[in-house]
Amino acid sequence: MSNSKVLPVLAPETATPCCPPLTERPLTAEEAERTAKMFKALGDPVRLRLFSLVASHEGGEACVCDISDVGVSQPTVSHHLKKLREAGLLTSERRGTWVYYRVEPSVLAAMGQTLGRYSA
Amino acid sequence: MSNSKVLPVLAPETATPCCPPLTERPLTAEEAERTAKMFKALGDPVRLRLFSLVASHEGGEACVCDISDVGVSQPTVSHHLKKLREAGLLTSERRGTWVYYRVEPSVLAAMGQTLGRYSA
Repeated sequence: MSNSKVLPVLAPETATPCCPPLTERPLTAEEAERTAKMFKALGDPVRLRLFSLVASHEGGEACVCDISDVGVSQPTVSHHLKKLREAGLLTSERRGTWVYYRVEPSVLAAMGQTLGRYSA
Repeated sequence: MSNSKVLPVLAPETATPCCPPLTERPLTAEEAERTAKMFKALGDPVRLRLFSLVASHEGGEACVCDISDVGVSQPTVSHHLKKLREAGLLTSERRGTWVYYRVEPSVLAAMGQTLGRYSA
């Protein structure tokens, strides 16, 4: 299998603005649609592990070549990274042979704010 | 159809501790499994709307009787509320005829903290 089948296709990224605080008022259908996508992207154990691998990797970025211990094949890793990218949680950049993934801090900050108004 | 088919079965609640900050280190498989469940529960547009309805309702609680404008039937509402309860995001209590749902602040605060370390 060639690398072109393994590496995800790159597309322009837009950081989706999201999520009024959930205590403020009921979400509209459109807001819920947009926000749910991001939560759904983190709602899979393998994707969540991959995401934490990228987020905690040196410099806040990682390439597929850095990821080998989540118990799934490299095409599966690439598939999940693509899903995270499509949900706006990761951005990607090709440098030479590899595609590097970074966390998208603004989107995560917005998601955190949505939930974070609650204090224990 | 009797009310007993519409109202979800009540069970004891435990607030699941969750989620080291995602930048700190890669999640273990077990941590990811537990944390992904909560994200997944919010990863559906109807559930997210219901959740925001409860969270933004007066006093931070609502009963099924307060929820009528999300475009799905009452049994579907009850089904989704049960899912949110099973994920530890809502707690429920029966008072008289109705079951009342509240947000579980500690779990949401933990989820928010997990994401919130990122700043834009």
